[in-house]
Amino acid sequence: MQTGFEINTRGQGLYEVTRDVALWLSGAGDGLLTLLVQHSSASLLIQENADPDVQRDLCAYFSRLVPRGDTPEMSYLVHTLEGPDDMPAHIKAAMLPVSLSIPVQRGRLVLGTWQGIYLFEHRDAPHTRKLTAHFRAD
Amino acid sequence: MQTGFEINTRGQGLYEVTRDVALWLSGAGDGLLTLLVQHSSASLLIQENADPDVQRDLCAYFSRLVPRGDTPEMSYLVHTLEGPDDMPAHIKAAMLPVSLSIPVQRGRLVLGTWQGIYLFEHRDAPHTRKLTAHFRAD
Amino acid sequence: MQTGFEINTRGQGLYEVTRDVALWLSGAGDGLLTLLVQHSSASLLIQENADPDVQRDLCAYFSRLVPRGDTPEMSYLVHTLEGPDDMPAHIKAAMLPVSLSIPVQRGRLVLGTWQGIYLFEHRDAPHTRKLTAHFRAD
Repeated sequence: MQTGFEINTRGQGLYEVTRDVALWLSGAGDGLLTLLVQHSSASLLIQENADPDVQRDLCAYFSRLVPRGDTPEMSYLVHTLEGPDDMPAHIKAAMLPVSLSIPVQRGRLVLGTWQGIYLFEHRDAPHTRKLTAHFRAD
Repeated sequence: MQTGFEINTRGQGLYEVTRDVALWLSGAGDGLLTLLVQHSSASLLIQENADPDVQRDLCAYFSRLVPRGDTPEMSYLVHTLEGPDDMPAHIKAAMLPVSLSIPVQRGRLVLGTWQGIYLFEHRDAPHTRKLTAHFRAD
Repeated sequence: MQTGFEINTRGQGLYEVTRDVALWLSGAGDGLLTLLVQHSSASLLIQENADPDVQRDLCAYFSRLVPRGDTPEMSYLVHTLEGPDDMPAHIKAAMLPVSLSIPVQRGRLVLGTWQGIYLFEHRDAPHTRKLTAHFRAD
């Protein structure tokens, strides 16, 4: 059982997809869910979904850890033609997960109480991001 | 085949779980193991299990890469109510794996000679951490 | 269905393995591929395979983020006997993926247009690196 999800992003940030994925799985029984983001400038995160400040702080931290390509500290970058947010996006996409595997019990994701699934957009411009979801019943 | 593991942690550090997982798999045949940590302030690592100094150095490195919330360089953090170790724990949990998938042959994890599976606790206080394990025979 | 791949590396850098994996899967139908690197000083990345400068910049970034063990800023490292590139290799292997799961449709990896699969070698010396591949048909 496979499907695709499309997420329309509006610049850098976390976009929750837990509900879309949970809906697709409803009635699916026990098994394993695998998600893959089909881009090399976006990531998939499982993170706290209670306080939105966590998402804000995550973005702030990774923006500092991987500064834009037009800053002095990133002047060694070569791949800069697609804009100052492009190579940092690839670096974040290398550092953060591209695929996630989540056990499913009776059609429900076995996530912790505070865990949600997020697409992490690393580019400035709006994008339509594709996820592939694979579910295999036990 | 699914089960849960509980790991009692005593502050930041790596806690090996290889033996518990291997025991659960004994006699399981060929297949695929998936582990998921059900928290957003702890991680799952496959790392060297020969020299304990590797674990010590890993902790030291990530503590420097993601300083505590009460340091000047992290003064931009907003989510600070749960203590100076909380938001850094979320950041480390975003950066390091939350799920792992490991092939299994004749009931044995297909790990390298020096690889062990670790829960990486990012909080200061003791916690009881839950892992979900999913095994699907081929 | 499981197999092993061996990749001969010639120092730090990204080595593409997409073609080897795709070849092994040809004719395999729908299912899920899981890859695991059996070393704790190398990683597996899904990254852009169009412009080789992306790979060069990724290496440059992570070399700066995790400096060699003989630099002043890494003087706190304890595990240094195996050379100044050894502990940084473990740190990179903790930070970057060790396992990847990729849906497969009609024997083809469901990757984005610009995504390729890479072994990321973190050691200076040439190594023979082992990957385990697991495919389970739906």
